[in-house]
Amino acid sequence: MKKIAVILVVVLNLFNGYAQKLKSPNGAFEMDFSLSKSGEPTYALYLKGKEVIKPSKLGFYIKDDKKSLVNDFELINEARGAHNEMWNPVWGEESAIKNHYNELAVTLKQKETNRKLIVRFRLFDEGLGFRYEFPEQKELIYFIIKEERTEFAMTGDHTALWIPGDYDTQEYDYTESKLSEIRSLFKSALTSNASQTQFSETGVQTSLMMKSADGLYINLHEAALINYSLMNLDLDDKNMVFKSHLTPDARGDKGHMQAPFTSPWRTIIASYDARDILASRMTLNLNDPCKLEDTSWIKPVKYVGVWWEMITGKSSWAYTDDVPSVQLGITDYAKTKPNGKHGATTKHVKELIDFAALHGFDGVLVEGWNQGWEDWFGHEKDYVFDFVSPYPDFNVVEIENYAKSKGVKMIMHHETSGSTRNYERHLDKAFRFMNDHGYDAAKTGYVGNILPLGEHHYSQSIINHYQFVIEKAADYKIMINAHEAVRPTGIYRTYPNMIGNESARGTEFQAFGGSKANHTTILPFTRLIGGPMDYTPGVFEMDIAKLNPDNNSHVNATIANQLALYVTMYSPLQMAADLPENYNRFLDAFQFIKDVPVDWSTTKYLEAEPGYYLTIARKDKNSNNWFVGNTNGYNKRSATISLDFLEKGKKYEATIYADAKDADYKTNPQAYVISNQKVTNKTKLKMTSAAGGGYAISIVEVK
Amino acid sequence: MKKIAVILVVVLNLFNGYAQKLKSPNGAFEMDFSLSKSGEPTYALYLKGKEVIKPSKLGFYIKDDKKSLVNDFELINEARGAHNEMWNPVWGEESAIKNHYNELAVTLKQKETNRKLIVRFRLFDEGLGFRYEFPEQKELIYFIIKEERTEFAMTGDHTALWIPGDYDTQEYDYTESKLSEIRSLFKSALTSNASQTQFSETGVQTSLMMKSADGLYINLHEAALINYSLMNLDLDDKNMVFKSHLTPDARGDKGHMQAPFTSPWRTIIASYDARDILASRMTLNLNDPCKLEDTSWIKPVKYVGVWWEMITGKSSWAYTDDVPSVQLGITDYAKTKPNGKHGATTKHVKELIDFAALHGFDGVLVEGWNQGWEDWFGHEKDYVFDFVSPYPDFNVVEIENYAKSKGVKMIMHHETSGSTRNYERHLDKAFRFMNDHGYDAAKTGYVGNILPLGEHHYSQSIINHYQFVIEKAADYKIMINAHEAVRPTGIYRTYPNMIGNESARGTEFQAFGGSKANHTTILPFTRLIGGPMDYTPGVFEMDIAKLNPDNNSHVNATIANQLALYVTMYSPLQMAADLPENYNRFLDAFQFIKDVPVDWSTTKYLEAEPGYYLTIARKDKNSNNWFVGNTNGYNKRSATISLDFLEKGKKYEATIYADAKDADYKTNPQAYVISNQKVTNKTKLKMTSAAGGGYAISIVEVK
Repeated sequence: MKKIAVILVVVLNLFNGYAQKLKSPNGAFEMDFSLSKSGEPTYALYLKGKEVIKPSKLGFYIKDDKKSLVNDFELINEARGAHNEMWNPVWGEESAIKNHYNELAVTLKQKETNRKLIVRFRLFDEGLGFRYEFPEQKELIYFIIKEERTEFAMTGDHTALWIPGDYDTQEYDYTESKLSEIRSLFKSALTSNASQTQFSETGVQTSLMMKSADGLYINLHEAALINYSLMNLDLDDKNMVFKSHLTPDARGDKGHMQAPFTSPWRTIIASYDARDILASRMTLNLNDPCKLEDTSWIKPVKYVGVWWEMITGKSSWAYTDDVPSVQLGITDYAKTKPNGKHGATTKHVKELIDFAALHGFDGVLVEGWNQGWEDWFGHEKDYVFDFVSPYPDFNVVEIENYAKSKGVKMIMHHETSGSTRNYERHLDKAFRFMNDHGYDAAKTGYVGNILPLGEHHYSQSIINHYQFVIEKAADYKIMINAHEAVRPTGIYRTYPNMIGNESARGTEFQAFGGSKANHTTILPFTRLIGGPMDYTPGVFEMDIAKLNPDNNSHVNATIANQLALYVTMYSPLQMAADLPENYNRFLDAFQFIKDVPVDWSTTKYLEAEPGYYLTIARKDKNSNNWFVGNTNGYNKRSATISLDFLEKGKKYEATIYADAKDADYKTNPQAYVISNQKVTNKTKLKMTSAAGGGYAISIVEVK
Repeated sequence: MKKIAVILVVVLNLFNGYAQKLKSPNGAFEMDFSLSKSGEPTYALYLKGKEVIKPSKLGFYIKDDKKSLVNDFELINEARGAHNEMWNPVWGEESAIKNHYNELAVTLKQKETNRKLIVRFRLFDEGLGFRYEFPEQKELIYFIIKEERTEFAMTGDHTALWIPGDYDTQEYDYTESKLSEIRSLFKSALTSNASQTQFSETGVQTSLMMKSADGLYINLHEAALINYSLMNLDLDDKNMVFKSHLTPDARGDKGHMQAPFTSPWRTIIASYDARDILASRMTLNLNDPCKLEDTSWIKPVKYVGVWWEMITGKSSWAYTDDVPSVQLGITDYAKTKPNGKHGATTKHVKELIDFAALHGFDGVLVEGWNQGWEDWFGHEKDYVFDFVSPYPDFNVVEIENYAKSKGVKMIMHHETSGSTRNYERHLDKAFRFMNDHGYDAAKTGYVGNILPLGEHHYSQSIINHYQFVIEKAADYKIMINAHEAVRPTGIYRTYPNMIGNESARGTEFQAFGGSKANHTTILPFTRLIGGPMDYTPGVFEMDIAKLNPDNNSHVNATIANQLALYVTMYSPLQMAADLPENYNRFLDAFQFIKDVPVDWSTTKYLEAEPGYYLTIARKDKNSNNWFVGNTNGYNKRSATISLDFLEKGKKYEATIYADAKDADYKTNPQAYVISNQKVTNKTKLKMTSAAGGGYAISIVEVK
């Protein structure tokens, strides 16, 4: 049900120095736009009269252009509007989303050059989005951005949950610190990665989650990152001002632009209630509506796979240890000696298909099925994979038929090894191969440095590549889950076949030495602001040495916590990552994973403190059942939650999967207790979560 | 008729310091390979006992590897062989080519690292080719070349015909100077270009043509440049040693290598007779035999086109002047105002088709037929063309049918504007479009800086792109004529659909200010050593202001010279570049262009002095007719040529197109005289060529 009311009022305002004011629909936020005496454009943001963002500069530094677009502006036009509609996403945390904002678009003209620049502000009840627009004009068509000059001036030395600013990866653990401490903590925040490039000792990534001294939560991010380079933030820690820092191309330039065009939106969400940050749909609302006419082929999916066994080192992606240097089309795998550890064999894949069918999973992902894994990593190899040639022990057709017979979908894996031109060269063939063999979703990966060499994972031209893949996949009715790609910025509203991304530190790092125990209490406030994450939870065996004696990693979570993640880490794609044998040991706990849906009609954020705890309740899109998840940080914690979101007058049966009394992510992660009780919307539950623990509750309507 | 005699003898030689000697089949050349006391590999070349190349170093500098591959070698194996065969090219300067050499392959092992490197030498009767081979080994698989360390130590301060070393263009006029003068003349040798990047004030390109003080002609080049970066030469002008200088990628690295692989061949052709340089087929012989099974679709072609009128500025490629910023798929050309100067209109193209049909030309090239030309140049634009969307006034199907009805082939134009990823994204569609509409050849272009930005026209990955296009074109049975791409290195033996390149300063520069009057007396010794050039000669109106009053360029050649180029500038693709109206004014001279073939069974080089004059005689592949061409430099010149190449006992009718007595490229370029006479193989002709002039002779068998 969409209600659109749009009122456009054009007011010519030729006075400089007076602020143009904009208020949010409920009047709580106010945005002031202003031009200084020297014609420098600034904006400021207030919540209930109190500064959230101090006056902050806007503009662009242009390459080979001393004047640039940073001052000497006058306001030549002002257009105001409002927008209020409900729209329905193809999949999501809710089945209807409200898009309600007041808008102000200011047209600036640079006096000396006559160049025009528009800044469009949309003020929502939860915060501000703004973007730059370059209208068609002869004074400015082709230009190169040296740096965007967008500032976010903080009102104080806030506490932030941050990861180091980087052109190539987001796979860091978060650090919680004051802004003034970022510099001294930067080096220790840096863990190693296959591809990483920092730019400043006070550089951080978005979305950035902060909390002021007086309890205001502030989130900075961007929306609709299309044909532009990714924005990191560089903190001036003398003045507590964040400056936009775009990702350079191989020549050090920050953007190759052609007017007319619009920049991505820069977003500021703020509230004294942390739950409002999560409840905001601003990122989605700032993206264009769905561009795909037919979306019937796009379906959320719960899956298992041949993956964790390779991540832990129990199996290998590679088929053989005989070939140190693969040349696709020349290397004859039939002549090599199998290493006996290859995960993706027909036999083993069938076992996973059986497991999926038995337990009602939609799909099976298989990595390591295709030729080239013997030397795929760390060589910046160009022709690394062809995406269509299986290993001798992976029978494509046999697996295709077996999966079909069991009602299970195979999920394709396209590891590109960062070799983007090679992937594009093979893309049509690879997608046709998928169509021919019943694969309708692909997990893609960009591990290692990007080729063309010199570009970064987050450069403009590589962001263009990820978008190219999404759009071409839609032509083939294929869903894409891109790992190591750019973190999402809501584009899945426009292209809902973009069904997932990793683009953050996922569960795999628990097998690479572990992640912080409060990691999943942070991610929804940072990485997930732009879109869902294929976090691949559901690990039940925390002691990785039990899978692979050479791997001493410990998964820093309890089983109850792992169950909760299916609720707290929103994704239309959910993997039960662990091996069937580990699930078989805890089938009672596994039941929650089987029951939890992957598509929702309503979401309620019950309680939240970024870095500490998060409790969410969601209603299944396809039934009247509700599911609750709590993920907990380092401190054992008890709290009461109210089930008042349940429907009045209805009776439900709740199954509670909770940490046992002595559970602990480190010392006793597999201790859980399952209990049942009847509940109604009047019920209050007193829950205790272990350190690194949590709980999961399925609430089934009693008919 | 192929005669292959291969003798392989393996000799183990564990002594260092002793030279391994190799002789050419006729014994005139000797190559000495040697390892110094410190295990540095060197080679030297002698002609009849006299040094041609002084001992010169071999090897590689490897990135992040202090040891590199420059010394500490020992010889662990030596393999010798010989090869003697005749093979037949699909098209060429002759229908049978002799490939006769003695070979020596030395296997070197680096003592400290155990890494192996092979250097393979092939010594022909006209000179030396050698390359590096990295065998499969675990000690060295993936590595990055910091710089190749191949030297060519000159025996003296030779005279050279050179152009500035550059990573992006070859479109320079040649400078003739001593090697010691290169440094002081470098700046003045640099003319401006849409994309150019020099690296050293003594850097020069290959092939490099030199002449020693005692009259020895020496040519340096490379053959089979595949998956490697282009080699320029950097002159150490203290010691007169040329050092290999590879083209860097965006990060400054010179090659991303994976063993096993082979480098391109480095070639040294030397003779006291300049004609032997031209007669050498070493570049072709060092390339792999033809890889295409079916070559029946590959045909040499003589063509006219809609092109010179845009080059001179008489017409425009662009359709409208209304659109400063084109967005393909969004810009609606039907709504714009045609600029009235668009060259590629259906009406005008039909005129060219009529002209082609009337005068027996095979094809018509049309540039500016497709959307995007309004802002294609100088913006490093990514999505610049889509290669399938015509302008409103170019009716693809109407032109297709008209050409078919007239027995004329349309030739496609794919200007990429350097945007290589964009071209690859559209390649299949573009080639299918050609198949669907009767185009079997495409002229491609790479004007402007290469995208991905930071790469160069001659970087390894862009050379990989050109090769990718050639190979994909072969799949579609399409011939490719690539302009602004890498200069050829004989790969057309392997892929004979690579029917042409420009990749040097072509005729268009005569309309951009003019080229030196002796330019075409040099190109066959430099640019054409690696393969044919689409020089597009045949300009009859030298005063460009007559076509476009705003263009004061003068074509620095006489009409007789322009006719000669169809013989002296070998190419299976020959354009009659000028406008029909200019040919119509000189139809008697035009007759030569109509008569001259584009495929040959035999070629004789009658006389040659690089930079001064060149006279060539060729026999038509499809008849007993011969054609002679002379191109002359700055000095008016008389010389006698003998027609003793004609068949004994046969009678011929010769039509001679010569400069008039007072002809001169500058003051009187259109003055020519046509005469007829009966000739036999006993005839001697005394010919006079004007400055910048020449002559063309068709010799038709009298039956």
